[in-house]
Amino acid sequence: MDPFLQAAIEEARAGLAEGGIPIGSVLVLGDKIIGRGHNRRVQKGSAILHAEMDCLENAGRLTANDYRQSTLYSTLSPCDMCSGTALLYGIPRIVIGENRTFQGPEEYVRSRGVELTLVDDPTCVELMKQFIAAHPELWNEDIGK
Amino acid sequence: MDPFLQAAIEEARAGLAEGGIPIGSVLVLGDKIIGRGHNRRVQKGSAILHAEMDCLENAGRLTANDYRQSTLYSTLSPCDMCSGTALLYGIPRIVIGENRTFQGPEEYVRSRGVELTLVDDPTCVELMKQFIAAHPELWNEDIGK
Repeated sequence: MDPFLQAAIEEARAGLAEGGIPIGSVLVLGDKIIGRGHNRRVQKGSAILHAEMDCLENAGRLTANDYRQSTLYSTLSPCDMCSGTALLYGIPRIVIGENRTFQGPEEYVRSRGVELTLVDDPTCVELMKQFIAAHPELWNEDIGK
Repeated sequence: MDPFLQAAIEEARAGLAEGGIPIGSVLVLGDKIIGRGHNRRVQKGSAILHAEMDCLENAGRLTANDYRQSTLYSTLSPCDMCSGTALLYGIPRIVIGENRTFQGPEEYVRSRGVELTLVDDPTCVELMKQFIAAHPELWNEDIGK
Protein backbone atom coordinates (compact mmCIF):
# COMPACT_ATOMS: atom_id res chain seq x y z
CA MET A 1 0.00 0.00 0.00
CA ASP A 2 0.94 3.65 -0.53
CA PRO A 3 2.88 4.48 2.67
CA PHE A 4 1.25 7.91 2.89
CA LEU A 5 -2.26 6.48 2.81
CA GLN A 6 -1.04 3.98 5.39
CA ALA A 7 0.09 6.90 7.58
CA ALA A 8 -3.35 8.52 7.20
CA ILE A 9 -4.97 5.23 8.26
CA GLU A 10 -2.70 5.15 11.32
CA GLU A 11 -3.95 8.65 12.16
CA ALA A 12 -7.55 7.44 11.77
CA ARG A 13 -6.84 4.54 14.14
CA ALA A 14 -5.20 6.89 16.65
CA GLY A 15 -8.36 9.00 16.60
CA LEU A 16 -10.53 5.93 17.14
CA ALA A 17 -8.37 4.88 20.10
CA GLU A 18 -9.02 8.30 21.65
CA GLY A 19 -12.79 7.82 21.30
CA GLY A 20 -12.94 9.96 18.18
CA ILE A 21 -14.20 9.69 14.63
CA PRO A 22 -11.73 7.49 12.66
CA ILE A 23 -10.62 9.77 9.84
CA GLY A 24 -6.96 10.55 9.30
CA SER A 25 -4.94 12.79 7.01
CA VAL A 26 -1.36 13.58 6.07
CA LEU A 27 0.19 16.35 3.98
CA VAL A 28 3.09 15.25 1.81
CA LEU A 29 5.79 17.41 0.21
CA GLY A 30 8.24 15.57 -2.00
CA ASP A 31 8.73 12.26 -0.22
CA LYS A 32 8.17 13.62 3.30
CA ILE A 33 5.13 13.91 5.53
CA ILE A 34 5.05 17.54 6.69
CA GLY A 35 1.78 17.41 8.57
CA ARG A 36 -0.51 14.78 10.04
CA GLY A 37 -3.75 14.82 11.94
CA HIS A 38 -7.08 13.21 12.65
CA ASN A 39 -10.63 14.25 13.37
CA ARG A 40 -10.83 15.79 16.85
CA ARG A 41 -14.51 16.71 17.16
CA VAL A 42 -14.93 14.53 20.22
CA GLN A 43 -11.48 14.95 21.74
CA LYS A 44 -11.40 18.77 21.57
CA GLY A 45 -15.11 19.56 21.34
CA SER A 46 -14.23 21.05 17.96
CA ALA A 47 -16.56 22.03 15.14
CA ILE A 48 -13.73 22.58 12.66
CA LEU A 49 -11.05 19.98 13.35
CA HIS A 50 -11.83 17.45 10.68
CA ALA A 51 -8.81 15.28 9.91
CA GLU A 52 -7.62 17.41 7.00
CA MET A 53 -8.00 20.62 9.03
CA ASP A 54 -6.11 19.14 11.97
CA CYS A 55 -3.40 17.97 9.56
CA LEU A 56 -3.05 21.39 7.90
CA GLU A 57 -3.06 23.14 11.27
CA ASN A 58 -0.37 20.79 12.55
CA ALA A 59 1.69 21.43 9.41
CA GLY A 60 1.87 25.07 10.52
CA ARG A 61 2.12 28.22 8.44
CA LEU A 62 3.60 27.11 5.12
CA THR A 63 4.57 29.12 2.06
CA ALA A 64 2.24 29.21 -0.95
CA ASN A 65 5.02 27.47 -2.86
CA ASP A 66 5.04 24.54 -0.44
CA TYR A 67 1.27 24.11 -0.59
CA ARG A 68 1.40 24.19 -4.38
CA GLN A 69 3.80 21.26 -4.48
CA SER A 70 2.10 19.16 -1.84
CA THR A 71 -0.38 16.29 -1.83
CA LEU A 72 -3.14 15.95 0.75
CA TYR A 73 -4.10 12.43 1.80
CA SER A 74 -7.33 11.67 3.58
CA THR A 75 -8.87 8.33 4.50
CA LEU A 76 -12.29 9.76 3.52
CA SER A 77 -13.54 11.98 0.69
CA PRO A 78 -13.03 15.59 1.90
CA CYS A 79 -16.20 17.49 2.83
CA ASP A 80 -17.05 21.03 1.69
CA MET A 81 -14.91 22.57 4.45
CA CYS A 82 -11.81 20.48 3.86
CA SER A 83 -12.13 20.65 0.08
CA GLY A 84 -12.44 24.43 0.35
CA THR A 85 -9.30 24.58 2.46
CA ALA A 86 -7.35 22.62 -0.16
CA LEU A 87 -8.66 25.09 -2.77
CA LEU A 88 -7.71 28.12 -0.66
CA TYR A 89 -4.12 26.95 -0.47
CA GLY A 90 -3.88 25.68 -4.02
CA ILE A 91 -3.03 22.11 -3.02
CA PRO A 92 -2.93 20.43 -6.45
CA ARG A 93 -3.46 16.76 -5.54
CA ILE A 94 -5.72 14.93 -3.11
CA VAL A 95 -5.56 11.18 -2.52
CA ILE A 96 -8.80 9.82 -1.07
CA GLY A 97 -8.96 6.54 0.83
CA GLU A 98 -12.65 5.98 0.11
CA ASN A 99 -15.86 7.76 -0.82
CA ARG A 100 -18.38 4.98 -0.18
CA THR A 101 -19.48 6.13 3.28
CA PHE A 102 -19.36 9.86 2.44
CA GLN A 103 -18.66 11.87 -0.67
CA GLY A 104 -17.61 15.50 -0.65
CA PRO A 105 -17.84 17.90 -3.61
CA GLU A 106 -15.39 15.92 -5.75
CA GLU A 107 -16.74 17.14 -9.08
CA TYR A 108 -16.44 20.77 -8.05
CA VAL A 109 -12.93 20.29 -6.69
CA ARG A 110 -11.90 18.65 -9.98
CA SER A 111 -13.48 21.55 -11.90
CA ARG A 112 -11.18 23.88 -9.95
CA GLY A 113 -8.15 22.02 -11.28
CA VAL A 114 -7.32 19.66 -8.43
CA GLU A 115 -6.26 16.10 -9.28
CA LEU A 116 -8.24 13.64 -7.16
CA THR A 117 -7.17 10.02 -6.83
CA LEU A 118 -9.64 7.58 -5.32
CA VAL A 119 -7.99 4.50 -3.81
CA ASP A 120 -11.20 2.77 -2.61
CA ASP A 121 -9.32 1.12 0.23
CA PRO A 122 -11.28 -1.55 2.14
CA THR A 123 -9.64 -0.70 5.50
CA CYS A 124 -10.79 2.93 5.21
CA VAL A 125 -14.32 1.77 4.34
CA GLU A 126 -14.44 -0.69 7.23
CA LEU A 127 -13.24 1.87 9.81
CA MET A 128 -16.05 4.24 8.84
CA LYS A 129 -18.77 1.59 8.45
CA GLN A 130 -18.16 0.27 11.93
CA PHE A 131 -18.00 3.74 13.45
CA ILE A 132 -21.16 4.98 11.72
CA ALA A 133 -23.08 1.87 12.82
CA ALA A 134 -21.97 2.36 16.42
CA HIS A 135 -22.28 6.19 16.62
CA PRO A 136 -24.67 7.47 13.97
CA GLU A 137 -25.47 10.68 15.88
CA LEU A 138 -21.81 11.66 16.16
CA TRP A 139 -21.24 10.96 12.51
CA ASN A 140 -24.28 13.00 11.45
CA GLU A 141 -23.09 15.89 13.59
CA ASP A 142 -19.70 15.76 11.88
CA ILE A 143 -21.22 16.18 8.42
CA GLY A 144 -23.83 18.75 9.44
CA LYS A 145 -26.83 16.40 9.23
CA MET B 1 -25.69 50.01 11.08
CA ASP B 2 -26.65 46.38 11.49
CA PRO B 3 -25.54 45.61 15.08
CA PHE B 4 -24.29 42.17 14.05
CA LEU B 5 -22.01 43.57 11.36
CA GLN B 6 -20.92 46.11 13.95
CA ALA B 7 -20.02 43.24 16.28
CA ALA B 8 -18.02 41.59 13.49
CA ILE B 9 -16.14 44.88 12.94
CA GLU B 10 -15.38 45.02 16.66
CA GLU B 11 -13.89 41.53 16.32
CA ALA B 12 -11.80 42.71 13.37
CA ARG B 13 -10.52 45.65 15.42
CA ALA B 14 -9.72 43.35 18.35
CA GLY B 15 -7.65 41.22 15.98
CA LEU B 16 -5.82 44.27 14.66
CA ALA B 17 -5.05 45.40 18.23
CA GLU B 18 -3.45 41.98 18.83
CA GLY B 19 -1.21 42.45 15.77
CA GLY B 20 -3.42 40.24 13.63
CA ILE B 21 -5.25 40.45 10.32
CA PRO B 22 -8.36 42.64 10.82
CA ILE B 23 -11.19 40.34 9.81
CA GLY B 24 -14.03 39.55 12.21
CA SER B 25 -17.06 37.31 12.23
CA VAL B 26 -20.14 36.52 14.30
CA LEU B 27 -22.71 33.74 14.10
CA VAL B 28 -26.27 34.82 14.84
CA LEU B 29 -29.23 32.65 15.82
CA GLY B 30 -32.55 34.48 16.16
CA ASP B 31 -31.57 37.83 17.67
CA LYS B 32 -28.54 36.51 19.56
CA ILE B 33 -24.85 36.23 18.79
CA ILE B 34 -23.92 32.63 19.56
CA GLY B 35 -20.32 32.76 18.37
CA ARG B 36 -17.72 35.39 17.59
CA GLY B 37 -14.16 35.36 16.42
CA HIS B 38 -11.42 36.95 14.38
CA ASN B 39 -8.52 35.90 12.22
CA ARG B 40 -5.79 34.39 14.40
CA ARG B 41 -3.11 33.47 11.87
CA VAL B 42 -0.54 35.69 13.57
CA GLN B 43 -1.70 35.33 17.16
CA LYS B 44 -1.86 31.51 17.18
CA GLY B 45 0.43 30.68 14.26
CA SER B 46 -2.66 29.15 12.69
CA ALA B 47 -3.20 28.10 9.09
CA ILE B 48 -6.93 27.53 9.57
CA LEU B 49 -8.22 30.17 11.99
CA HIS B 50 -9.71 32.66 9.58
CA ALA B 51 -12.30 34.85 11.30
CA GLU B 52 -15.26 32.68 10.28
CA MET B 53 -13.47 29.49 11.40
CA ASP B 54 -12.54 31.03 14.75
CA CYS B 55 -16.15 32.18 15.15
CA LEU B 56 -17.60 28.75 14.36
CA GLU B 57 -15.06 27.04 16.62
CA ASN B 58 -15.91 29.42 19.46
CA ALA B 59 -19.63 28.76 18.91
CA GLY B 60 -18.89 25.14 19.83
CA ARG B 61 -20.58 21.95 18.69
CA LEU B 62 -24.06 23.02 17.58
CA THR B 63 -26.97 20.97 16.30
CA ALA B 64 -27.67 20.82 12.57
CA ASN B 65 -30.96 22.54 13.35
CA ASP B 66 -29.19 25.51 14.92
CA TYR B 67 -26.80 25.92 11.98
CA ARG B 68 -29.73 25.78 9.57
CA GLN B 69 -31.42 28.72 11.27
CA SER B 70 -28.32 30.85 11.70
CA THR B 71 -26.67 33.71 9.82
CA LEU B 72 -22.92 34.06 9.47
CA TYR B 73 -21.52 37.59 9.39
CA SER B 74 -18.05 38.36 8.15
CA THR B 75 -16.35 41.69 7.56
CA LEU B 76 -14.81 40.21 4.37
CA SER B 77 -16.08 37.96 1.58
CA PRO B 78 -15.50 34.38 2.82
CA CYS B 79 -12.68 32.46 1.11
CA ASP B 80 -12.95 28.90 -0.23
CA MET B 81 -12.30 27.41 3.23
CA CYS B 82 -14.80 29.52 5.12
CA SER B 83 -17.42 29.29 2.37
CA GLY B 84 -16.99 25.51 2.39
CA THR B 85 -17.50 25.42 6.13
CA ALA B 86 -20.77 27.34 5.82
CA LEU B 87 -21.84 24.83 3.14
CA LEU B 88 -20.86 21.85 5.30
CA TYR B 89 -23.12 23.04 8.10
CA GLY B 90 -25.94 24.26 5.90
CA ILE B 91 -25.78 27.85 7.15
CA PRO B 92 -28.42 29.47 4.92
CA ARG B 93 -27.42 33.14 5.05
CA ILE B 94 -24.11 35.00 4.95
CA VAL B 95 -23.80 38.76 5.41
CA ILE B 96 -20.56 40.12 3.93
CA GLY B 97 -19.05 43.43 5.03
CA GLU B 98 -17.15 43.95 1.79
CA ASN B 99 -15.71 42.13 -1.21
CA ARG B 100 -13.56 44.90 -2.72
CA THR B 101 -10.25 43.79 -1.22
CA PHE B 102 -10.92 40.06 -1.63
CA GLN B 103 -13.70 38.01 -3.14
CA GLY B 104 -14.37 34.39 -2.29
CA PRO B 105 -16.41 31.94 -4.39
CA GLU B 106 -19.66 33.90 -4.01
CA GLU B 107 -21.26 32.62 -7.22
CA TYR B 108 -20.65 29.00 -6.25
CA VAL B 109 -21.96 29.54 -2.73
CA ARG B 110 -25.12 31.12 -4.16
CA SER B 111 -25.48 28.19 -6.57
CA ARG B 112 -25.56 25.90 -3.51
CA GLY B 113 -28.57 27.77 -2.16
CA VAL B 114 -26.99 30.18 0.31
CA GLU B 115 -28.36 33.72 0.48
CA LEU B 116 -25.49 36.21 0.37
CA THR B 117 -25.95 39.85 1.33
CA LEU B 118 -23.21 42.29 0.45
CA VAL B 119 -23.18 45.41 2.65
CA ASP B 120 -20.16 47.12 1.02
CA ASP B 121 -19.29 48.83 4.29
CA PRO B 122 -16.57 51.52 4.06
CA THR B 123 -15.15 50.72 7.51
CA CYS B 124 -14.59 47.09 6.51
CA VAL B 125 -12.90 48.20 3.29
CA GLU B 126 -10.67 50.70 5.07
CA LEU B 127 -9.54 48.20 7.71
CA MET B 128 -8.38 45.80 5.00
CA LYS B 129 -6.88 48.41 2.67
CA GLN B 130 -4.68 49.81 5.41
CA PHE B 131 -3.63 46.36 6.59
CA ILE B 132 -2.83 45.06 3.11
CA ALA B 133 -0.75 48.17 2.34
CA ALA B 134 1.21 47.75 5.58
CA HIS B 135 1.60 43.92 5.54
CA PRO B 136 1.19 42.58 2.01
CA GLU B 137 3.19 39.39 2.74
CA LEU B 138 0.97 38.45 5.69
CA TRP B 139 -2.15 39.08 3.67
CA ASN B 140 -0.90 37.02 0.73
CA GLU B 141 -0.08 34.17 3.08
CA ASP B 142 -3.61 34.30 4.47
CA ILE B 143 -5.18 33.81 1.05
CA GLY B 144 -2.67 31.25 -0.18
CA LYS B 145 -0.86 33.57 -2.58
